[in-house]
Amino acid sequence: MSVQEMLQTHPRPATADRDALTRCIDECFRCAATCTSCADACLGEEDVQGLVSCIRLNLDCADACAATGRIVARQTAPEVALVRAFIDACAAACRACAEECERHAAHHEHCRVCAEECRRCEEACNDLLSSIG
Amino acid sequence: MSVQEMLQTHPRPATADRDALTRCIDECFRCAATCTSCADACLGEEDVQGLVSCIRLNLDCADACAATGRIVARQTAPEVALVRAFIDACAAACRACAEECERHAAHHEHCRVCAEECRRCEEACNDLLSSIG
Amino acid sequence: MSVQEMLQTHPRPATADRDALTRCIDECFRCAATCTSCADACLGEEDVQGLVSCIRLNLDCADACAATGRIVARQTAPEVALVRAFIDACAAACRACAEECERHAAHHEHCRVCAEECRRCEEACNDLLSSIG
Amino acid sequence: MSVQEMLQTHPRPATADRDALTRCIDECFRCAATCTSCADACLGEEDVQGLVSCIRLNLDCADACAATGRIVARQTAPEVALVRAFIDACAAACRACAEECERHAAHHEHCRVCAEECRRCEEACNDLLSSIG
Repeated sequence: MSVQEMLQTHPRPATADRDALTRCIDECFRCAATCTSCADACLGEEDVQGLVSCIRLNLDCADACAATGRIVARQTAPEVALVRAFIDACAAACRACAEECERHAAHHEHCRVCAEECRRCEEACNDLLSSIG
Repeated sequence: MSVQEMLQTHPRPATADRDALTRCIDECFRCAATCTSCADACLGEEDVQGLVSCIRLNLDCADACAATGRIVARQTAPEVALVRAFIDACAAACRACAEECERHAAHHEHCRVCAEECRRCEEACNDLLSSIG
Repeated sequence: MSVQEMLQTHPRPATADRDALTRCIDECFRCAATCTSCADACLGEEDVQGLVSCIRLNLDCADACAATGRIVARQTAPEVALVRAFIDACAAACRACAEECERHAAHHEHCRVCAEECRRCEEACNDLLSSIG
Repeated sequence: MSVQEMLQTHPRPATADRDALTRCIDECFRCAATCTSCADACLGEEDVQGLVSCIRLNLDCADACAATGRIVARQTAPEVALVRAFIDACAAACRACAEECERHAAHHEHCRVCAEECRRCEEACNDLLSSIG
């Protein structure tokens, strides 16, 4: 809710379709939270040894989403090529993390939830890229 | 939604009341997004010179909330004194940022929205602190 | 080197002793890097199960140092009580992480190196707190 | 110093030339600190209105370097395409920030120092990319 209101009250014109922007920013911050939580939940499992790749990708994806969410949230004086590069790299991080979490989704509910969130964020990134043109 | 599901599917027992945890984590990530956006909106205003303190506190609050949201999201092997120190410092950051944004709320709608988000996050931090006991 | 030069060329007067500031900022960013690396090195060990608490504290300390390094680096319009709260919480994170890493220092060289870095950062935080008065 | 020691004591084989890795991680964290400081120094200048683009790129570059430094620091179970995408996007952020800071280098010493740091980080990113092959 807040992000949508912030974009509506911003003094500069939106750099892309406002709904696509809102969704991408919201999903990036939500995915950063979810991946941070999934890394921690994996760390709390008895079979942590088998979840090493998953934890690593969770941590990468959390960092990718946190940085990208901030960069996309900025509407003043953007460098479009730079913004695009981060949205694109973020979509790649979400896809890699989703693929890994999906492998554990049958055994660990937190991986199933995290994979779904990563897919939503990946889609929001790709939709925003299309909207930027 | 995701954070709530993540906490429900976490293998370790919650370190505090689960509703208070969920709300604090959600508000920390939302406040980090909102403050990042408010710093940027202030930077886009014609009277940016008069918003220097506001931008600085927005940036501090965004960093405070991002770190605290991650630390609170971790339920495995927590160091309670450390978690408490960050929730407490985060509440202080939210309060300072809210007070400054409230000074500009009549002239800048984004400061009004941001101040409200900071107050919600401050309250969520304080409620979680009470629940930890 | 860069941080020292940045503080020397900053338009506003330093908010504390400049050497103490430089050292605290440098150590916070270096400790964030070191703790990120130690969490990852622990994750790559065969006895990862026995390093779960260490990884968790590494991740907390990395987030604590990253946020505190940014907040301390800002010299324009600071809210002193807020800055103090974060330096104090950061010192607590460094101490907790150092204590845990020291438990594994005999078996894992990366934990020994990380514990030493955490102690240096803890000291730099405490020295800066004394200098702020 | 710490990052070099951490990579030397890591249980997994380095994912790229160790000197190039060390330098890239060190420069990413140093550039994150320098850009955070430059954004703040610009905010403290009397002609802040003329430095709006510079502040925005400083903030983007700080976030880009912080995330990339963390992702590159991880040597356990890396997803190479993802790591490459972030190093590449980080080099673009450093280049854009350096170009903007260079425009103000004659008037603001902190922009000159920051531009030099951004160029070092850009080079370290590109050297690491070449070393990964």
